[in-house]
Amino acid sequence: MSEAALACCQLAPRVGEPARNRAEARAAIVAAADAGARIIVLPELVNSGYVFADGAEARACAEPLDGPTVGEWSALARERDLLIVGGVCEDDGPVLRNTSVIVDRDGLRTAYRKAHLWDRESLFFEPGAEPPPVVETAHGRIATMVCYDLEFPEWVRLPALAGADLLCAPTNWPREPRPARERPAEVVRVQAGASSNRMFIAACDRCGTERGVDWVAGTVIVGPDGFPLAGPACIDEPTTIAARCELAQAREKRTSERNDVFADRRPELYA
Amino acid sequence: MSEAALACCQLAPRVGEPARNRAEARAAIVAAADAGARIIVLPELVNSGYVFADGAEARACAEPLDGPTVGEWSALARERDLLIVGGVCEDDGPVLRNTSVIVDRDGLRTAYRKAHLWDRESLFFEPGAEPPPVVETAHGRIATMVCYDLEFPEWVRLPALAGADLLCAPTNWPREPRPARERPAEVVRVQAGASSNRMFIAACDRCGTERGVDWVAGTVIVGPDGFPLAGPACIDEPTTIAARCELAQAREKRTSERNDVFADRRPELYA
Repeated sequence: MSEAALACCQLAPRVGEPARNRAEARAAIVAAADAGARIIVLPELVNSGYVFADGAEARACAEPLDGPTVGEWSALARERDLLIVGGVCEDDGPVLRNTSVIVDRDGLRTAYRKAHLWDRESLFFEPGAEPPPVVETAHGRIATMVCYDLEFPEWVRLPALAGADLLCAPTNWPREPRPARERPAEVVRVQAGASSNRMFIAACDRCGTERGVDWVAGTVIVGPDGFPLAGPACIDEPTTIAARCELAQAREKRTSERNDVFADRRPELYA
Repeated sequence: MSEAALACCQLAPRVGEPARNRAEARAAIVAAADAGARIIVLPELVNSGYVFADGAEARACAEPLDGPTVGEWSALARERDLLIVGGVCEDDGPVLRNTSVIVDRDGLRTAYRKAHLWDRESLFFEPGAEPPPVVETAHGRIATMVCYDLEFPEWVRLPALAGADLLCAPTNWPREPRPARERPAEVVRVQAGASSNRMFIAACDRCGTERGVDWVAGTVIVGPDGFPLAGPACIDEPTTIAARCELAQAREKRTSERNDVFADRRPELYA
């Protein structure tokens, strides 16, 4: 495990414009790779946009895992030796899924279906019932989940206990009012999840008002001590943040001579 | 349930000086009550200090739950109609406990024994094996746990699911280096715990270098949206922070038309 060059590309997908969204994602991936990134994280539902008018529009934007978006990311990963994590509106036959894929030079490594759906997503998507996958890669062990999943500490804990060094989370965080000078609560929870588990978390958010919805645009890369290594962006425009991450640091769960954040758990008392 | 006037009294106990520590706590309680507080939270191990040289010193500082510290707090609670939460070094017969008590005008309501011990505490204390208690009070439902317990999201979840409106946590957070302009990671995790569970959390920390150990002094009161209502203090001197808390807000777990932070949990997938 060497130092991992990680980038998150905050983008502004437009609902119902998959070809345009795919081109924007491609351009961001290429630019991040040109700047040295080897692990690239993209937002949730980056092919489709988010604020669907109805189920028909969601379905019209969806594509299977062997469709053009994942195909293009796989080709880029192979050509440039990248690992790409991004969110797609997935056509899974009779149902649609809010999915995050991990692709690398070997192609599609895993597809995770969002298990906790936010608000109107439940009108369009079938929730997943599988835990966040952890993939062994050349960089270390990488896991993924999607947006609202992050709000459940039990869910963040699962890939950490399964050995994840880095959790990559595509997000579309709708913006809520917050006090001046406060970090978004979504970012705070990512910081806490990273430090509680002593793992890296990269959350890649979106920007760009869509049908009246604004976004936190809080793209952030957090280290295992819970402090941001890059971001939070908190600017409402496409931007790429980057950090070099010693993922091996996430293998050290000791925090004092006698403490270890995993060994100190008392799961028999948590039921 | 009306608005609760809450105060946290950050103090600087001195190890091995229980009479002095008790007097300092008493003075802080009286001053906070004079200023209008009705719920008063004190630090961890406020009767004993923290950095014990050895087990004999810890035992010499310990007292039973019917000892002078809890007795004094009970008398003050009765006289002034207060609810007091504070940490005591407890003589529990053959073992010592790192305990948090809740007292009100009816006397000792509950004693919680810290279940997750930090570093050298395991040399002196027997960990508890009971979940954080939730006490029905005139102000609302109040729970307590101690310091390092807060670092386990599963543990914070338990009293929240049991209906706690306010979690009061005596702490002694040893200070670690952190990047400039960053909030202490301990405070960030309290913010996340509050917002993940939509409950109030009051963490009362200590200050005052003790045998070479410095403290975060990060006393903070956080609302159910995860933002501080008072603090974090982050000054290394005794200080009282206060906030008026509409504890009924913690009964509202809905966060969108279709979401509820408890109902959206999928515990069958968390095992």
